[in-house]
Amino acid sequence: MRNKCIIMQKINSWETERDRNYMIKVGIIGATGYAGGELVRILQLHKNAEIKWYGSRSNKGQPYAGIYQNFFKIVAADCMDENMETLAAEVDVIFTATPQGFCSHALNETILQQAKIIDLSADFRLKDVNIYEKWYELTHPCPQYLEEAVYGLCELNREQIKGARLLANPGCYPTCSILSLYPLAKEGLIDMNTVIIDAKSGTSGAGRSAKTDNLFCEVNENIKAYKVAGHRHTPEIEEQLSIASGEPVVLNFTPHLVPMNRGILITAYASLKREVSYKEVKAVYDSYYEKEAFVRVLEKDVFPQTRWVEGSNFVDVNFKIDPRTKRIIVMGAMDNLVKGAAGQAVQNMNLMFGLPETEGLQMLPVFP
Amino acid sequence: MRNKCIIMQKINSWETERDRNYMIKVGIIGATGYAGGELVRILQLHKNAEIKWYGSRSNKGQPYAGIYQNFFKIVAADCMDENMETLAAEVDVIFTATPQGFCSHALNETILQQAKIIDLSADFRLKDVNIYEKWYELTHPCPQYLEEAVYGLCELNREQIKGARLLANPGCYPTCSILSLYPLAKEGLIDMNTVIIDAKSGTSGAGRSAKTDNLFCEVNENIKAYKVAGHRHTPEIEEQLSIASGEPVVLNFTPHLVPMNRGILITAYASLKREVSYKEVKAVYDSYYEKEAFVRVLEKDVFPQTRWVEGSNFVDVNFKIDPRTKRIIVMGAMDNLVKGAAGQAVQNMNLMFGLPETEGLQMLPVFP
Amino acid sequence: MRNKCIIMQKINSWETERDRNYMIKVGIIGATGYAGGELVRILQLHKNAEIKWYGSRSNKGQPYAGIYQNFFKIVAADCMDENMETLAAEVDVIFTATPQGFCSHALNETILQQAKIIDLSADFRLKDVNIYEKWYELTHPCPQYLEEAVYGLCELNREQIKGARLLANPGCYPTCSILSLYPLAKEGLIDMNTVIIDAKSGTSGAGRSAKTDNLFCEVNENIKAYKVAGHRHTPEIEEQLSIASGEPVVLNFTPHLVPMNRGILITAYASLKREVSYKEVKAVYDSYYEKEAFVRVLEKDVFPQTRWVEGSNFVDVNFKIDPRTKRIIVMGAMDNLVKGAAGQAVQNMNLMFGLPETEGLQMLPVFP
Amino acid sequence: MRNKCIIMQKINSWETERDRNYMIKVGIIGATGYAGGELVRILQLHKNAEIKWYGSRSNKGQPYAGIYQNFFKIVAADCMDENMETLAAEVDVIFTATPQGFCSHALNETILQQAKIIDLSADFRLKDVNIYEKWYELTHPCPQYLEEAVYGLCELNREQIKGARLLANPGCYPTCSILSLYPLAKEGLIDMNTVIIDAKSGTSGAGRSAKTDNLFCEVNENIKAYKVAGHRHTPEIEEQLSIASGEPVVLNFTPHLVPMNRGILITAYASLKREVSYKEVKAVYDSYYEKEAFVRVLEKDVFPQTRWVEGSNFVDVNFKIDPRTKRIIVMGAMDNLVKGAAGQAVQNMNLMFGLPETEGLQMLPVFP
Repeated sequence: MRNKCIIMQKINSWETERDRNYMIKVGIIGATGYAGGELVRILQLHKNAEIKWYGSRSNKGQPYAGIYQNFFKIVAADCMDENMETLAAEVDVIFTATPQGFCSHALNETILQQAKIIDLSADFRLKDVNIYEKWYELTHPCPQYLEEAVYGLCELNREQIKGARLLANPGCYPTCSILSLYPLAKEGLIDMNTVIIDAKSGTSGAGRSAKTDNLFCEVNENIKAYKVAGHRHTPEIEEQLSIASGEPVVLNFTPHLVPMNRGILITAYASLKREVSYKEVKAVYDSYYEKEAFVRVLEKDVFPQTRWVEGSNFVDVNFKIDPRTKRIIVMGAMDNLVKGAAGQAVQNMNLMFGLPETEGLQMLPVFP
Repeated sequence: MRNKCIIMQKINSWETERDRNYMIKVGIIGATGYAGGELVRILQLHKNAEIKWYGSRSNKGQPYAGIYQNFFKIVAADCMDENMETLAAEVDVIFTATPQGFCSHALNETILQQAKIIDLSADFRLKDVNIYEKWYELTHPCPQYLEEAVYGLCELNREQIKGARLLANPGCYPTCSILSLYPLAKEGLIDMNTVIIDAKSGTSGAGRSAKTDNLFCEVNENIKAYKVAGHRHTPEIEEQLSIASGEPVVLNFTPHLVPMNRGILITAYASLKREVSYKEVKAVYDSYYEKEAFVRVLEKDVFPQTRWVEGSNFVDVNFKIDPRTKRIIVMGAMDNLVKGAAGQAVQNMNLMFGLPETEGLQMLPVFP
Repeated sequence: MRNKCIIMQKINSWETERDRNYMIKVGIIGATGYAGGELVRILQLHKNAEIKWYGSRSNKGQPYAGIYQNFFKIVAADCMDENMETLAAEVDVIFTATPQGFCSHALNETILQQAKIIDLSADFRLKDVNIYEKWYELTHPCPQYLEEAVYGLCELNREQIKGARLLANPGCYPTCSILSLYPLAKEGLIDMNTVIIDAKSGTSGAGRSAKTDNLFCEVNENIKAYKVAGHRHTPEIEEQLSIASGEPVVLNFTPHLVPMNRGILITAYASLKREVSYKEVKAVYDSYYEKEAFVRVLEKDVFPQTRWVEGSNFVDVNFKIDPRTKRIIVMGAMDNLVKGAAGQAVQNMNLMFGLPETEGLQMLPVFP
Repeated sequence: MRNKCIIMQKINSWETERDRNYMIKVGIIGATGYAGGELVRILQLHKNAEIKWYGSRSNKGQPYAGIYQNFFKIVAADCMDENMETLAAEVDVIFTATPQGFCSHALNETILQQAKIIDLSADFRLKDVNIYEKWYELTHPCPQYLEEAVYGLCELNREQIKGARLLANPGCYPTCSILSLYPLAKEGLIDMNTVIIDAKSGTSGAGRSAKTDNLFCEVNENIKAYKVAGHRHTPEIEEQLSIASGEPVVLNFTPHLVPMNRGILITAYASLKREVSYKEVKAVYDSYYEKEAFVRVLEKDVFPQTRWVEGSNFVDVNFKIDPRTKRIIVMGAMDNLVKGAAGQAVQNMNLMFGLPETEGLQMLPVFP
C-alpha cells in the first residue's frame, strides 16, 4: 500500500506509468531536517521509489505533514523512530540525513546485508580515519567500512557507485568545489599549492535546529565568514583533489553565510602552471562535462549565479583567466539542498539501483 | 522537430512516455516576463505540450536562455516577435503574458479560428466594458468578445472552460481572494457589504520592467500599501463575488508589497450573517474543495503561509471565526506566478484540450 | 566613573557638552534582547543619561559587547543579574525589557521609592486586571499598581507621564495602531464597531530567543498571519480607543510576520459616520499632530512605508477615503524597536525627568 | 537662514549648541543617489555644517523630501541643478556624488579657489592618468589636478588631507581592502605577489538607477561574482598597497553581489613571508589602529560581520593565520555607504576644515 493520500492521487497523473514491478522501498532517517525534507520532495515524484519510513526521533508519532506543511494532503505518514536495524528489514535503501556520528554508530553488517545505505553525513567520506577524527573531533566507531564506502560524486565515481552498498554522499561545499576544479586538477593545469576556495552559502546549509545565530534577524542584512581555516569540508575537498591531481593538496577554504535560503557559490583561485588560452581551457571543461546531465559549463564571461540553479540538480561552472596575475578564477553555483544533498543522494540511488541517473531529478531551476 | 537541446534530452527520461499523437503546439507572447518564464518552466515538463514560439519583441533574435539563464542547455530557441496572426497559423494555443491592451488590440476572428487564446492580462476578465474602461483607463478595442470570453478560474467555471476559444486567465489577487471567499459568498454566510480584503504580495507580481520602485534596496526591509482604494483587481473580485452571492458586491481591497520573490497572502474580513460553528463552516469549505486537486483547506488553527505553497499550483485556505466581533477572518496563500498566473493558465489549457487537469502541474511546494 | 572605554571617548566629541550636574543613572533589565540592545544604542548618545547596569541573567558575567558586537569598544561593561532591589538602590530609573510577568513579580514599594520604573512588558498596560489575566493567562501579582501606572503613549498622556513613578511602555502594535486611529476615534468620525486593524511586523518583534519558527529559512520568502483573533495587543488597543472615543470598542486585530528586520505597518479600516472630505480629515489629523516631533502626517496619497522611518522614532500616518464603500483606510508606519519600544521608552524617560522630550532621539531614518 | 523646517527644529535640541560663528556651507551634487542621501542623513546632524544645495539635475525643482521620504518634514529644500561654478560661489565645500567623469569635466581653477571639493567618484583617485584611462575607458579632461588631489583615506593620509583643496574620496571596496591589509603590507609581513581579495557587497553599492539586474527579484535569493578580473577598484587598491609596501603590487580582486542593502565584507588571502604568531600580528594591527576612532581590531577568532557596523563609520578588521598553508586570511567589514562613501567624505571634510575628525559621525551601528 502506498503511503499517499487523496490529493496526491488526484494530481499524479503519471501514477499509472510507474513500473510497479520495480518500486524501491525507501527509508529516511532525519526526515525533518532541511535535507530530509528535500529528499521527500524529490522522491514523491520519483517513478520508481516510495518512501516507507519518515524517521525523526524528536517528532516520533507526529504527522510528517504537520512539520512540513508543504506536504499537507501529500504525505499522510507519521514520523517514525530512527532504529536502523528495524528499518533495514523493511526497505531497500536507507538515507541517513543525520548529524555526524549517527550513521557510523548505528551501522553493522546485518544492516548492510539487508539495505543499501546512502549517508548524507560525513561519516564515510574520508578514507583516512585519522583525518576524520582530527577534523570532526569524534572517534570513528567503524573504520573498517571506510575502505568499502564509495564517495558518491557521481560525475567522478559513476562506476564504483553502481556497485556500492555503503555510499558516502558528498558535502555541499565539496560537491561544488570539486566539480568546479576537477578538470584543472586532473589535467595538471594549475599549481595545486596555490588553490584558494572562497565559498558562499545560503542559510539552509546551517540546518533547522533552533540556534540564535540562525535567527532571521541575525542572518538577514549580514554577511560573515565562519570557521575560517578550520571548516570540516576542507579535508574532503583536499582528498578528492589530491586523487584527481595525483599529488597531496593543502588548500584554503573559507565559507561565508549569505542571507538567502538556498544556493552555494564558490569562487576559487589558482595559479596557472603555464600560459593557456580561453579556448584551450574551455575545451578541457567541455571534454569532462559535455555528456553530463547536471553540469553546465557556461558561455564565455557568463558567470554562475545561484538563482539560475535554484531548486534543480544543476551545477553551473565557469572560469576566467587573469593574464595580469597568471591566475585562473573558477566559479561554481549549485543548490546546496539538491545537488549539494538530496538531489545527489537520489542520483546516487538511481545509479545504485540501475535506474536512469536522471530519474526524479528533472526539476528545472525556479526563477525568480 | 522538438525545440530542445542536448542536455534536456539527457534529463528527460520521461520523454519516451509522451503521447506523440497528441502534442499541443504552444506559442507564448511576453515570454521574457516573470509569468512568461514560469510558463516555460511548467510547459517544459508537460507531457503533451511543446513550446514553438518564445515571443518577446524587445529581445527578438536573442537566445531565450541568454535572458533566463536557468534554461541554459534546456531551451535552444531564440526570441521571436509578437505577431499574433503569424503565430496563430503555427500553433494550437497562444498564451499572452503581456501588458493590458495588447491582446485585445491584436485579437481578431482569423486568429480565434486558428488557435485558442489564453490571455494572462486583464483584457477579457470583466464582462462590463464600462467597468474595464473606467478602471483600466483604456478604450476596449473589441468588446464584442467579452461575452464569449470565459473567466478561467477552473474551480468555478470548469465546464465552460472546456469549450472556450478565448480564455481570460484570472488576476493573481482575484484568484486567491475569490477562492478563499467563494464558499462563504455562495452559501450566503457573510454580509457581502462588509467584505474587506487585505492582500500581501511578493515582488514578482510587479513584473520585470526596470523601475526604481522595484529595485532591491527599495523593496528590501520595507512594507507598504499601494493603490489604496484604487487597485484594478478590485472590480474583478467584485464581479465574481457578485455572481457567487447573487447580489452586487462593493468591497475594499488593499494590496501590499512584501520583500519576497513569490507568494500572495490574502486576509479577508466579513461579518457573519448568523452564528455559525467551526464545524459548520469547515464542512462548507470541504464540500466545495475536497475534490479539488489544487485547493487545500487547512486544519483547524493552521493558517496559510506562502512558504508552504511556493513553486506549486496549490492554494491553501483557512478561516477563523471571531465570536467577539461576529466576524470571520478568511486567509488564502498561493504562489502568484503559478496558481496566480502560469500554473492556472496551464490548468486552463489542460481543460481546453481535454487533458487531465493536473498534467504538468505536479510540482510540489519548494521549502525552504 | 563613566562606563565607556577608549574608542567611545574618542568619538564622542559632544562629551564635554553634557551637563554633568544632571546625569540620569540608568539600569536595564533584559539588556540582551532586541529592545534592550536598542535602549543601549539610544542611551549611549543621550546627553543626560548613562547606563550603569546591563542586566541579563542568562549572560551574567559576560562582556555585553561580546553578545552585541556592534558595541565592541563602546560598551566595556559585563552583564549583571536582574535583581531589581539591588539595582533600584544604584540607579534613578530602571527599564525592564523583559517577558510578561517579570516586572510585576519583582516590583514593590521599596523599589518604587528609589527608582522610577519604565516597564516595556505588558504587565501594567491594562487597567482591568481581569482582562490582563484572561489574555495573558497569568495571575497578576500586584494589581494594586495598575491604577497608578501611567500608559506611556507620550502624544496622548504627556502630562500624566511627567509625574509617573511606574510607566507602562505601550506595545509596538498598539503604539502604531492607536496613534493612527486616535484623531478619528476622538473626533467621532468613525463607527467604532467597524474597526479592523491588519498589521504587519518585521521579525525583530518576535524577540531574540532561539525558536525554529524564527529561523532565517522559515521567515525568509514567507508571509503569514499569526494569533488570528487572539493576539494580546488587542485589548490594549481596545482600551485606549475606548478611552478616546468614549464608548466600548471591540475590534479585529490581525498581526502578520514579514521577512524584514524592523518595521510595523498597520492598515486599518473603519466605516465613516458621515460623508467627509479629504481636507476635513487632513485638518483633523494636523490639529492633533502638527506640534508633535515624532508623528508625521504625510501628504495626500503618499502612503506610509516602513523604510522611511527605520531607525528613527517617527510614526508616519496617512489615510484614504473610499467613497465607494464609505470607509476610511488609515495607515501607520513605525520602527517597532524605536517608537514601538526603546525610543518611546526614552521619550517617556525624558518626560519623567523633565528633559526635552526629543533628547537622544534625533536619529534620522536610515535608508536604504 | 537654515534650510530646515519645523519638525527638525523641534527635535534638534542640540541646535543651540552649534557654534554659529563656524558653520560650513555645503553643496551636494548627486544628492539623490544613495551616497548623496547618506551625506544628507549625516550632515543634518553635523554641528558645524549646513547643506545649502541639494543638486540633482534629473529632479531639479522637485522637493528633495519627495524623493527621499525619510527626510519629510526634515529637509524643506527643492533639488537644484548641478552647475559647479554657480555652486562654488555659494558654499565652502562641494561633495560630488556623481558618476565617473562628472567632476573632472566640471572642475577648474575658479571653482577650486572658491570651494573645497570632495569628489566621491574615481576621477582623482589614481595618480597615473594612463591607468585611469585604461580601466575607466574615459579620457581624463584635467590630469593636471591628479598630482594635487589627495587620496582621502584618513587613517593613512591624515596630514595631507588637512591641507587639501581637492579630495579624492576612496572607493568602497578599496577603503575596506586597504585598511584591512595595510599593516601587513607596510610591515612587509606578506608576499605582495600572492594577495587575493574576495569581496562581497550589499546592493546599495550598485546605485539607484533603474536597471533590471538590480531589481528585487533578480538580487534576492542570489549571489554572483561580477566584473571578475576586471573591476575598476583593482588599480586603486593596487596603487595604495604599492605605496604601502614599497613594491609594485598586482593582485586579484573579485567583487560579489549579496542580497542585502548595506555592507561590504572583504576576505583577503596572502602568503606569509615568515612564520609569525597571532600575538605578533595582533600587536602590529594594534599599533596601527589602536588610536583610530573608526577602525576596530576585533578579538581573537571573532570575525568581522557587516551587521555589527551597519549605519556607522566603523571598519571592523581581523585576521587568521593558517599554519597548514602558511597563509594569513584577513577580513574587513564596513558599511559601504558610510565609511565606504558618505561617512568617510564627512570625516575628510572635518579634517579639511579643522574640526574634530569624528564630528557628525558618532552614529552607533544599528542592529538588527
